[in-house]
Amino acid sequence: MTEKIEDYRAEYVIDACQYANWNRTIFEQMREGGVTCVNATIAYWENTRETLTRIAEWRRLFAANADLIMPVKTFTDIRRAKKDGRTGITLALQHCLPIEEEIDMVEIMHDLGVRFMQLSYNNQSTLATGWLESEDPGITRFGREVIREMNRLGVVIDMSHSAERSTLDAIEISERPIAITHANPISWCDTRRNKSDTVLKSLAESSGMLGFSFYPNHLRDGSDTTLEEFCNMVARTVELIGTEHIGIGSDLVQGQPYWVIDWMRSGKWTKQTLNSLKWPVPTTWFKDNSNFPGIAGGLLAKGFAKEEVEQIMGGNWLRFIETAFRPA
Amino acid sequence: MTEKIEDYRAEYVIDACQYANWNRTIFEQMREGGVTCVNATIAYWENTRETLTRIAEWRRLFAANADLIMPVKTFTDIRRAKKDGRTGITLALQHCLPIEEEIDMVEIMHDLGVRFMQLSYNNQSTLATGWLESEDPGITRFGREVIREMNRLGVVIDMSHSAERSTLDAIEISERPIAITHANPISWCDTRRNKSDTVLKSLAESSGMLGFSFYPNHLRDGSDTTLEEFCNMVARTVELIGTEHIGIGSDLVQGQPYWVIDWMRSGKWTKQTLNSLKWPVPTTWFKDNSNFPGIAGGLLAKGFAKEEVEQIMGGNWLRFIETAFRPA
Repeated sequence: MTEKIEDYRAEYVIDACQYANWNRTIFEQMREGGVTCVNATIAYWENTRETLTRIAEWRRLFAANADLIMPVKTFTDIRRAKKDGRTGITLALQHCLPIEEEIDMVEIMHDLGVRFMQLSYNNQSTLATGWLESEDPGITRFGREVIREMNRLGVVIDMSHSAERSTLDAIEISERPIAITHANPISWCDTRRNKSDTVLKSLAESSGMLGFSFYPNHLRDGSDTTLEEFCNMVARTVELIGTEHIGIGSDLVQGQPYWVIDWMRSGKWTKQTLNSLKWPVPTTWFKDNSNFPGIAGGLLAKGFAKEEVEQIMGGNWLRFIETAFRPA
Repeated sequence: MTEKIEDYRAEYVIDACQYANWNRTIFEQMREGGVTCVNATIAYWENTRETLTRIAEWRRLFAANADLIMPVKTFTDIRRAKKDGRTGITLALQHCLPIEEEIDMVEIMHDLGVRFMQLSYNNQSTLATGWLESEDPGITRFGREVIREMNRLGVVIDMSHSAERSTLDAIEISERPIAITHANPISWCDTRRNKSDTVLKSLAESSGMLGFSFYPNHLRDGSDTTLEEFCNMVARTVELIGTEHIGIGSDLVQGQPYWVIDWMRSGKWTKQTLNSLKWPVPTTWFKDNSNFPGIAGGLLAKGFAKEEVEQIMGGNWLRFIETAFRPA
């Protein structure tokens, strides 16, 4: 890829994970990048009550930027966003504290627009194990109940930050396909935050979805990883699990102050603050939402057919969401 | 009314206030009484988080008794309940603690199905004054904001437990008609919990609604009040404000243990518990939802025309709700 890579504008661009200090500039970049839908993280360590405020903040963003974005609760909403030339936004929880230990709060969150929830975030949760724990006893008793309820309502189970056994359990227990919204293969970048071939194969065989992450910590050479290397990784993943079950989950973080990374890592569960942490420097080829046509161009340059690029950029997530958001 | 009063089954029976220890027997009584819609109190001193659990409890009741009841969020829902032969249930807050001091929580509660909210319950609230306070400074700064937001969304402002000046203020400030869901005229039963002629006239002139209460504490002779006396009071109220703006708001309390009356009165705001309190004994003619045809019969016997009885039993609330639940 020494030659200049041409941008390619995919019909549907769907990003299954972003967490920004949202503002109008970011929504304008979404338009510039032709982004159809973004799955926006609204909570990490927020409890139920605090999550309501996060949801309310999005209501204000929707009202103030109605020309650029709109809430997405159904597949039809995504079609409408596309038709309007706006970016649809789905709401996602990266941890299960927002439902506390009350099964009915899954329905309350669903009512208020939440469409994705991770069963655990780094640590052991009441539902599942996080990837940073040394032991992984798998899905818990409450976890089985919550999976059944999420299946019933049409809330997508996301295991991006969960440990291996819990993830394999979730794939097996869930009656509907699950998602790993933002991660890459361990075989390419060796961190347990990424996913083993076993998990990736099990995910794809069950019609689940993997969203490739652009977060430097999940990339083989961190911030120095080239677009070509990234596209090679996509090609190898296609060899492993095919083109049907992969998409984008950039894990783009924009405009967040330094203390937010500490909040994400430490929440309220430890007194050890990590003040020295800095946000990783983004790659040169993915800094914001306007860069998506460059990614699509990179995939074309790698030799993917246009149809495959369309699938990876958004078509696969679109098909997944069409059934996943439908109540059982 | 020495002769036997014949039951009369009004087409629409709408009760603007009940608070029961809900169960299937009560829902069966609603069917027996031909009740189209009941406005169910879900919170007094519950905060935002606790209110979510109250809402979730109703979701379970709706699921377990779907043959008898259904949630009502729109006017169309009431029509559907009527068509199905089920009782529609609207959710109501008797106090504003469920929104804490966060304006966006009005929309969250509306999203979850709340359609009525009292601005104060007995005490001074952050919005308005309750009827038991000695001073009433009227609607507060936050109160004006909340009224505007309720007007925007279509959440009915209820001043049943509020003090006089606050109530008159609310009628004036609100751009939409308000309600006093459960109270009687002070001129008939002299407690400040009931409403003055000034308030009743102002309410009716602004197209607001009064729901007559059957709660013994609001009745001239308490539990001994006769249906005839009650119907005479209705007739006098009609002379004062006409037949268009009156309906039923029974304040029926069923199956609640004694501690609940203490919860209603004392919440968490005082250490003085009122353990000696007992629920007032109901009148002989209104013990549960199956008694509504008897009330309608009493009104007919008093000399009201059938058309007027239809208005009072449900027609007026139906017309009010048709516009009141519509977002601005």
